[in-house]
Amino acid sequence: MKEIMAIIRMNMVNKTKKALATEGFPAFTCTKISGRGKKAMDYTIEEAFLTENNMPTSVAETFSEGYRLLPKRLLLVTVPDGAVEKAVTVIIHANQTGSPGDGKIFVLPVEEAIRVRTGETGDTAIT
Amino acid sequence: MKEIMAIIRMNMVNKTKKALATEGFPAFTCTKISGRGKKAMDYTIEEAFLTENNMPTSVAETFSEGYRLLPKRLLLVTVPDGAVEKAVTVIIHANQTGSPGDGKIFVLPVEEAIRVRTGETGDTAIT
Amino acid sequence: MKEIMAIIRMNMVNKTKKALATEGFPAFTCTKISGRGKKAMDYTIEEAFLTENNMPTSVAETFSEGYRLLPKRLLLVTVPDGAVEKAVTVIIHANQTGSPGDGKIFVLPVEEAIRVRTGETGDTAIT
Repeated sequence: MKEIMAIIRMNMVNKTKKALATEGFPAFTCTKISGRGKKAMDYTIEEAFLTENNMPTSVAETFSEGYRLLPKRLLLVTVPDGAVEKAVTVIIHANQTGSPGDGKIFVLPVEEAIRVRTGETGDTAIT
Repeated sequence: MKEIMAIIRMNMVNKTKKALATEGFPAFTCTKISGRGKKAMDYTIEEAFLTENNMPTSVAETFSEGYRLLPKRLLLVTVPDGAVEKAVTVIIHANQTGSPGDGKIFVLPVEEAIRVRTGETGDTAIT
Repeated sequence: MKEIMAIIRMNMVNKTKKALATEGFPAFTCTKISGRGKKAMDYTIEEAFLTENNMPTSVAETFSEGYRLLPKRLLLVTVPDGAVEKAVTVIIHANQTGSPGDGKIFVLPVEEAIRVRTGETGDTAIT
């Protein structure tokens, strides 16, 4: 099985969550991160203004000193090997706006999964 | 060596931390996440009421729109290959209540570990 | 490609971010974590006082009950296989003070990376 780690815009979490649930991936986790990609300087002004706490841009700039970090969300979804392509496609479709900052998806190998309540392992633990 | 990534209830962190330390795993990290499992609709009402900031349920529901995300904790513990089974067992024993929401444990391969202070690598860096 | 997961002091993020960008690693993400290493009891008093919200030490101690968790930062940087050693060296140099608590670096295998905006995959997606 694989862990899909997706870094997406903070306002895309609900849309992505629904798209994944609709397509058969109900279980996932989400955490707040700060991040920047290679093309951070190409971000639109609107996006640069958008900070986790609606801080004025000047505060955000002072905070990150020219290598501006933007609030993002990190999604973790663990899926069977055969479902990786579908889950990645769902995440891309939900998040692709065509503007820099759409995010990145990483696929990491997972050797084992265990459901704590039942002790179930393998794909049974995640589906 | 392996990274054990455990998603557990937020009120189980101290118990799990102590159990791991007692059994020889003193080092770990913990972060706040939001998550839901497959059987989210089976959560007890008490649990549904429990949100990170004790928000009323109606606010939490509005926030997550029917695919309710619950506050959880993500633990990361890196252990030598030979200690994976023991660490997983400790985490299961500390977190197994038998109710939905007990959490999940994932085991990921780790190719290298380095202690920043000394430059030590391999199992020496994590034990 | 590999994911470099570094647990560092919270006040080292900007320095590390700049060092990585200068050396050709502009893209990374950062999240708040709590953590403790093996030698937590060797932490200096200054560090024990330092909590995420400048809570008095007594509050922090009550919170973690003798297995004190300190606020840390988790950096995630994904790099091509050939760049792992350089990125790790940059992170070590930026964070090595010689005192306990300098942090740890883990290297995890990544099977695929996708840039959401363009659909690019592989090293092209991360460089």
